[in-house]
Amino acid sequence: MSHDLQLQPDGRLRHLLTLEGLPAATITGLLDAAEALRPHAHRGTALRDRLAGRSLCTLFFETSTRTRSSFQLAATRLGMDVLNFDLATSSTKKGESALDTLRTLEAMGVDSFVIRHADNGAVAALAAGAAPGTRIINAGDGRSAHPTQGLLDMLTLRQHKGADFSRLAVLIAGDLKHSRVARSDLHALRALGCGEIRVCGPANLLPGDDVLQGCRVFHDFDQAVAGVDAAIMLRLQRERMDEGLVPSLEGYYKDYGLSPARLALAKPDAIVMHPGPMNRGVEIDGGVADGPQSVILQQVANGLPMRMAVIAALMG
Amino acid sequence: MSHDLQLQPDGRLRHLLTLEGLPAATITGLLDAAEALRPHAHRGTALRDRLAGRSLCTLFFETSTRTRSSFQLAATRLGMDVLNFDLATSSTKKGESALDTLRTLEAMGVDSFVIRHADNGAVAALAAGAAPGTRIINAGDGRSAHPTQGLLDMLTLRQHKGADFSRLAVLIAGDLKHSRVARSDLHALRALGCGEIRVCGPANLLPGDDVLQGCRVFHDFDQAVAGVDAAIMLRLQRERMDEGLVPSLEGYYKDYGLSPARLALAKPDAIVMHPGPMNRGVEIDGGVADGPQSVILQQVANGLPMRMAVIAALMG
Amino acid sequence: MSHDLQLQPDGRLRHLLTLEGLPAATITGLLDAAEALRPHAHRGTALRDRLAGRSLCTLFFETSTRTRSSFQLAATRLGMDVLNFDLATSSTKKGESALDTLRTLEAMGVDSFVIRHADNGAVAALAAGAAPGTRIINAGDGRSAHPTQGLLDMLTLRQHKGADFSRLAVLIAGDLKHSRVARSDLHALRALGCGEIRVCGPANLLPGDDVLQGCRVFHDFDQAVAGVDAAIMLRLQRERMDEGLVPSLEGYYKDYGLSPARLALAKPDAIVMHPGPMNRGVEIDGGVADGPQSVILQQVANGLPMRMAVIAALMG
Repeated sequence: MSHDLQLQPDGRLRHLLTLEGLPAATITGLLDAAEALRPHAHRGTALRDRLAGRSLCTLFFETSTRTRSSFQLAATRLGMDVLNFDLATSSTKKGESALDTLRTLEAMGVDSFVIRHADNGAVAALAAGAAPGTRIINAGDGRSAHPTQGLLDMLTLRQHKGADFSRLAVLIAGDLKHSRVARSDLHALRALGCGEIRVCGPANLLPGDDVLQGCRVFHDFDQAVAGVDAAIMLRLQRERMDEGLVPSLEGYYKDYGLSPARLALAKPDAIVMHPGPMNRGVEIDGGVADGPQSVILQQVANGLPMRMAVIAALMG
Repeated sequence: MSHDLQLQPDGRLRHLLTLEGLPAATITGLLDAAEALRPHAHRGTALRDRLAGRSLCTLFFETSTRTRSSFQLAATRLGMDVLNFDLATSSTKKGESALDTLRTLEAMGVDSFVIRHADNGAVAALAAGAAPGTRIINAGDGRSAHPTQGLLDMLTLRQHKGADFSRLAVLIAGDLKHSRVARSDLHALRALGCGEIRVCGPANLLPGDDVLQGCRVFHDFDQAVAGVDAAIMLRLQRERMDEGLVPSLEGYYKDYGLSPARLALAKPDAIVMHPGPMNRGVEIDGGVADGPQSVILQQVANGLPMRMAVIAALMG
Repeated sequence: MSHDLQLQPDGRLRHLLTLEGLPAATITGLLDAAEALRPHAHRGTALRDRLAGRSLCTLFFETSTRTRSSFQLAATRLGMDVLNFDLATSSTKKGESALDTLRTLEAMGVDSFVIRHADNGAVAALAAGAAPGTRIINAGDGRSAHPTQGLLDMLTLRQHKGADFSRLAVLIAGDLKHSRVARSDLHALRALGCGEIRVCGPANLLPGDDVLQGCRVFHDFDQAVAGVDAAIMLRLQRERMDEGLVPSLEGYYKDYGLSPARLALAKPDAIVMHPGPMNRGVEIDGGVADGPQSVILQQVANGLPMRMAVIAALMG
């Protein structure tokens, strides 16, 4: 459903809800656009006329200041008016439905929305009910998708490893079960023809086979990391776990934390990625996070041109 | 008191605190100004120089994201700098009075305020203490008034039914007792010479005779809606009711909800209005809310040019 | 440490963390710059190109809407993009460290930060970990420092009493123990060579001798206020006191409140200052706060050009 919803008949993007099923050319085109925008993404007013007088609303049914800030800065760089709509303090308390909130904001002239929601499929459902001219970007729904994070991860990988993903072995490690980032990364890596996709985590933190199709599954981190070109580490999403599921943090680090010794098993030029926020000493060693192979802050930096490219593609 | 406070000696508006007692020409002038601003209200930068370098602060002692957003977008379209001041996280916790908060913001150069407060008369009291150059717009105080909602309701009515209100029968239905929107609508309808004003609701949700003077009061919805040109439906403000007062939602819909069958009793071209947020299936049927006679989203859309017109009138 | 951290080798400011140890010429230069910016601080777009395309993030680990608003308006007047980052709703809840939050925002292109934190030294610690190009302004850390408040207090004093501080007797009265404003005022008054610095408060609300060095300490308010040129009154920071420490408000006003009778003991042209928020009837009489000798709102007004001057000095 998301697929039909997000592509227009001529193949251009209407909404960005998921990377699942997106043609490789669409993904590559967005990465190229982000590269072109990069020189003006972090400072300056060069692109301030691009979408001046258009508006973007961050509509967050689940709090995330870092993702919201990244979108806010990206839209501002393009000259848009940004409205932050925090649903913790909104009309939903007065019984209004999420779709009525969306339609109300549409009626105020808001023409694009960046939406985060705790429920799988909730953003696509809002897109299905939106007006034809409205553009919607999924900033994370449940465990399903976080497509702009997937795109900026690919942008970062491509900057370091080149455009030929078929030669790469990429590991995604940690709590994949609760991670929408992992799912969007998997969608993108498959679309771009990644040579080998490995996943690693304790059995009770890995998702089902449908999610992991085509992946090599490991439970032993030393084996998983051996020879990879990139390791994408994931935070333990304890706030999403049933109480019995939460592992001991010390034991988790011992078995599944990216220590310097483990990183040494990867290729010498392997890069270390993490979507943040990090829990140092749990899924990743602090020294590794700050070390020469870490591109974690570059991922954050890439978030701006990547999100600018997505906004421009939808609104252009 | 509000009346003297909000009009300057030459008859121009200083503050907008209530529609009660405003001359019809003042209301009509604001509606005309809103119509003139409408083409540039929802998009574009045409009016960006109008009030550039002036500032507006939304000062909400009671949360309302939708009204705040409407004012924020309206002020932004006019080029103003907007400061959102959420009193849930403010100095009032440190014992500062509301008036000291206002004066502090005035000293920072803020020259206009959009204020919402839970107490009747609280906004007028702040206006009475404000500096001479300050302009204040009441965004809702207690049950007393919500004048910009009243104005945008009149704008919407006029767009559909023409400028001669003497020919119209308008129904306001639901929880009028707790509704500042109802009071501002009543003030405006009287000022514009509405031919027949009907009100309908359970006896314990209607306000006193002073509020309803000149209205035809109904407790039977079928009789109330028969032949009207417009029905303004109001949300059950359960959060303002004593516990014993809250009706069963199912029973309420049966007796006072605007169902398709009830709407059929109104004039064939009657319009359905609601200030939002809506509780579908309680005071209004979802199909009616989305149906061809509903102008609910047009009310929201009218909020922008209407608020721009008010801001421009006060600041001009 | 803060001292080395905040000055560049050529003596220019890198960060503004504390006024302690700052050369008098640096302080005077900032006051002069603020005076020059004053005509454009509260309205207009004259300085909108000054720092256009640069960004400032208010990063508040402790809530303060009034200080945040003052910085937001100051940065906006200079054309900056402002991001408000409220840590009550941030990733710190997901276990991320404050420094990782800062670095993440740096990676998004944010190049200046206004930081408030409940812990002494926390802002300096973040400055120590920041990237070389980042600029940090302390908006209050624990009881340690609130340097822009200290500067705007000096600006206000200088406007009324002239640039020769050696001729002045200045009293700081109230809860100095918990006050970062008092410490920054003391740093600045010493640097500018204030003739006589008096402090007054109940013994258990005064800080240690290290803080008060060079001050005349009073416990009797009548004696303390006699003949002073200025009285800086401080709020009882009850939220920072152990329960047993909180004095009775009535008794406190009787002993340490600035009443009209007490003010009459100061010089006839003495000015009354307060950093706000005020508790009328506790540390200050309402009539005194609003009276002809009060410059409290002028302090707030001075906050804008003073903060603009600091931002411009760091970013220029």
